[in-house]
Amino acid sequence: MKSFKIALAQFSPHIGNIDSNAQKMIEQANEAKKQHADLIIFPELSIIGYPAEDLLLRPNLGKRMHQAFQQLKEVKDIVMVFGFVHQTEEGHRYNSAAVMKDGVVLGIYNKHNLPNYGVFDEKRYFNPGHQHLVFEYLGHRFGVLICEDIWSLNTVQQLTQLNVETVLVLNASPYEVGKPQHRVQTLTELSKQLNVNLVYLNQVGGQDDLIFDGTSFVINHTGTVAVQAPSFKEALYYAEYDIENKQYKTTEVTPALDTMAEIYQSLVMATRDYVQRSGFPGVILGLSGGIDSALTLAIAADAIGADKVQAVMMPYTYTAQISVEDATEQARRMGVTFGIAEIHPIVNSFMQTLYPFFGNTPADATEENLQARARGTLLMGLSNKFGNLVLSTGNKSEISVGYCTLYGDMVGGFSVLKDVYKTIVFELAKYRNTLGDTPVIPERVITRPPSAELRPDQKDQDSLPPYDILDAILYAYIEEDQSQADIIAKGFEKDVVEKVIRLVDRNEYKRRQGAIGPRISSRAFSRERRYPIVNGWRPDD
Amino acid sequence: MKSFKIALAQFSPHIGNIDSNAQKMIEQANEAKKQHADLIIFPELSIIGYPAEDLLLRPNLGKRMHQAFQQLKEVKDIVMVFGFVHQTEEGHRYNSAAVMKDGVVLGIYNKHNLPNYGVFDEKRYFNPGHQHLVFEYLGHRFGVLICEDIWSLNTVQQLTQLNVETVLVLNASPYEVGKPQHRVQTLTELSKQLNVNLVYLNQVGGQDDLIFDGTSFVINHTGTVAVQAPSFKEALYYAEYDIENKQYKTTEVTPALDTMAEIYQSLVMATRDYVQRSGFPGVILGLSGGIDSALTLAIAADAIGADKVQAVMMPYTYTAQISVEDATEQARRMGVTFGIAEIHPIVNSFMQTLYPFFGNTPADATEENLQARARGTLLMGLSNKFGNLVLSTGNKSEISVGYCTLYGDMVGGFSVLKDVYKTIVFELAKYRNTLGDTPVIPERVITRPPSAELRPDQKDQDSLPPYDILDAILYAYIEEDQSQADIIAKGFEKDVVEKVIRLVDRNEYKRRQGAIGPRISSRAFSRERRYPIVNGWRPDD
Repeated sequence: MKSFKIALAQFSPHIGNIDSNAQKMIEQANEAKKQHADLIIFPELSIIGYPAEDLLLRPNLGKRMHQAFQQLKEVKDIVMVFGFVHQTEEGHRYNSAAVMKDGVVLGIYNKHNLPNYGVFDEKRYFNPGHQHLVFEYLGHRFGVLICEDIWSLNTVQQLTQLNVETVLVLNASPYEVGKPQHRVQTLTELSKQLNVNLVYLNQVGGQDDLIFDGTSFVINHTGTVAVQAPSFKEALYYAEYDIENKQYKTTEVTPALDTMAEIYQSLVMATRDYVQRSGFPGVILGLSGGIDSALTLAIAADAIGADKVQAVMMPYTYTAQISVEDATEQARRMGVTFGIAEIHPIVNSFMQTLYPFFGNTPADATEENLQARARGTLLMGLSNKFGNLVLSTGNKSEISVGYCTLYGDMVGGFSVLKDVYKTIVFELAKYRNTLGDTPVIPERVITRPPSAELRPDQKDQDSLPPYDILDAILYAYIEEDQSQADIIAKGFEKDVVEKVIRLVDRNEYKRRQGAIGPRISSRAFSRERRYPIVNGWRPDD
Repeated sequence: MKSFKIALAQFSPHIGNIDSNAQKMIEQANEAKKQHADLIIFPELSIIGYPAEDLLLRPNLGKRMHQAFQQLKEVKDIVMVFGFVHQTEEGHRYNSAAVMKDGVVLGIYNKHNLPNYGVFDEKRYFNPGHQHLVFEYLGHRFGVLICEDIWSLNTVQQLTQLNVETVLVLNASPYEVGKPQHRVQTLTELSKQLNVNLVYLNQVGGQDDLIFDGTSFVINHTGTVAVQAPSFKEALYYAEYDIENKQYKTTEVTPALDTMAEIYQSLVMATRDYVQRSGFPGVILGLSGGIDSALTLAIAADAIGADKVQAVMMPYTYTAQISVEDATEQARRMGVTFGIAEIHPIVNSFMQTLYPFFGNTPADATEENLQARARGTLLMGLSNKFGNLVLSTGNKSEISVGYCTLYGDMVGGFSVLKDVYKTIVFELAKYRNTLGDTPVIPERVITRPPSAELRPDQKDQDSLPPYDILDAILYAYIEEDQSQADIIAKGFEKDVVEKVIRLVDRNEYKRRQGAIGPRISSRAFSRERRYPIVNGWRPDD
């Protein structure tokens, strides 16, 4: 034997669906065997998927795990390394990896390092493991680690001191902008430093607000990348180890994506997985002629096909004619179902009903919100009648400062741009227009000044600082946890910074009721940035 | 000296507002001194309040803690035992208690046991402590523990083996039905078993969805309760230790509340604290003539005063005349502001606008939801215009199975009955009617069969099993984590159980967008029961 072959199952589990995941794992193992693979590796907790949250606490989890284990034992003639929940008779629960061959469990590894920060809550569910697992197969010494373990130098060193030649790392590592590249770079250094080969296998797919990018790879102990799988794609990839030369052959090395391509594809996959796994036949959204809904529409059509996307333009008095033109034009270019529903009669009926209460109070945001809520209710009506999921179209900048209407433009089951700042929305729209022959988003949608069109001649910049400044302040406050004083010290206007931070702090209640949306940043609202609603923290130092 | 005196500061912190909490602690210490107290004890993390969530991760937390500490050092002639966040130079963060006298820190205790289950996430924020703190004062040996520590027999035994006479326990223990009594009973046994006196001091007040009941107490080593503070009330209480007889004198022992009184008062406090600490001038709610809104109205009026409560009846074609009569009558009895707003014109305008899309499709839940959303939008309009907080009126039974309309009756900032099953709603309404001279909820509201009144002659029981059966199934599935098979085995109809569980599982997306509401159960949605939305778990075994 001159070489052996490892199959990398860049796998998209259906969270909680143990049966179907186990079935798919068996199919992939059999496919890998056809390709003469000697070993197949699956992601962290592959049997149940990551994160399964409190499903991990269901009392019959142990029974189901056992059943799945029995099914997997039917696979012969290939070593399987996969993730599962290991429950012991003493009542301990571990995030574990099993090594199985011909129905025999060769070893079990319990994850040592349980992340309990950011989006992670593993200490809620698991006990930490303390032992290492090394197994010899094909004359080669393999070690096993799970996700966070590879980022603990201490843990990795303990393992590599056991004369391991290849470390198999099972991961469910959530996507953030730039993270696929970051992993490869950091672990290339580590491989060289510790003189060990690494097989890094990551879950792929969207699960609620989390995106798993896949982007699995194999690094030689010399620091060369032998295999680099694409991001956002479920498939089997292969690595071939040359026994004589003691290294993995360089085979498929997918080039890294440019940042905008990476973000765009991440949102497409997240949207597709949410829609399909929730069982919706299609989606519906309000198309306003603005850039947020334009980009959301493009992502939706790319995710599930234009034939499954319905766009509705809902003009009112303050809607510019060019908004209607641009929305109509985009819908035509993309080939989605398009309709127009005027909201004047609805807004009027609300105003008449409220008149006895309002009297002659001056108009304020109340009337603007009525427009947004009339639209939200129409979209929900269409969703209820025909079953399509409503996509919410707000971006992270406006959700941060509450520049959006609860039960209005915030309605929907999935908020595609929830974690995308407005400045990035512009970049993504331009990026999408570079694909294909014709730009799908009319140029004017990108170039005209953003407006909510909720009162005459309104521009976003009447109430908010320019988006480049707003986003810089938001990034410093949210992503970087900087204090108000620090942000002012960077040169931003004091009044502007104070206003922006006050708005962020005050609008937690709105965000808490917003739809989930895919996380692409290092500090997404809700799962990751967990703030109280009633909050007496003073922002002033 | 024949005795010494301990002040129990059953304290309601403003979460995150370190300055105001420290100021209040100083005032209470000075008040305790006037009453000749020798020592004052405050709750767990009293300086910042519990739970402060990710405010604990703000980089300038350490600086603020230090400032508050300096302020507290000004208090003289009384020992203060209080909770704070202890950040070390090595970057460790502890949930700690300080013992301070005349500006000198006599000792610091770092909490050993960090709960990370249920509603707790302390391992996200804190490192565990490993040392005990014992101090001698007034010739008496005191030990200090924090909350979860007292429930670890191992930790308590380690401490009491250090010849401690009184254990001071600083707590932020969230309320659940029956928990105040449970704590006293369990810790009475422990005191006797370990032959030690216990001073158990608990935070009081509502914080978002968590209720802290207070109900602090002092137990003698003989197992007698010397002091029992009331629940849901912020105040200073005192315990006096008789040095000669080596025990705390029995002084104020507040009798335990009956279950319905306990729940009712918990909801009143939670509602008051949310409204007031969010800075709302008052509240508004939709009064339907049904029991949920009737009870919510009573709680709101008891919480903040009838003069700050606005109720709006929004009838439609399917609203019974007796609903209007009963709503009007209740508003009159309670003395709240009351108005009626018919929603026919609004619903008609929606239907006309949607007609080109709907065509002649048969009526279904879509049309019912339009009614609910017309009402929700009206309430939000009134809220936006006049600044009152909208209270949502749904109960746990309907929120569990999704028998409620997102952006309709679910609108609001605080959902008072969110964790209260319908069968308990009935009990609470009857209980409230026993207070005062006249029943505030018209009898008919309690006795008539529940109906959403969204189509002709509709009754809740047309679509749902009777509430006693529904609630029993929900309790088994949600609170007790029983499997579908187990619940059927208890004797419930198979079809009914399957339907109920399917509805619970499918409606996670609705609950995720619902308002927060006070937790009274042992398994509240969202903070405590954390389920994925996309969820492939099969309920069938």
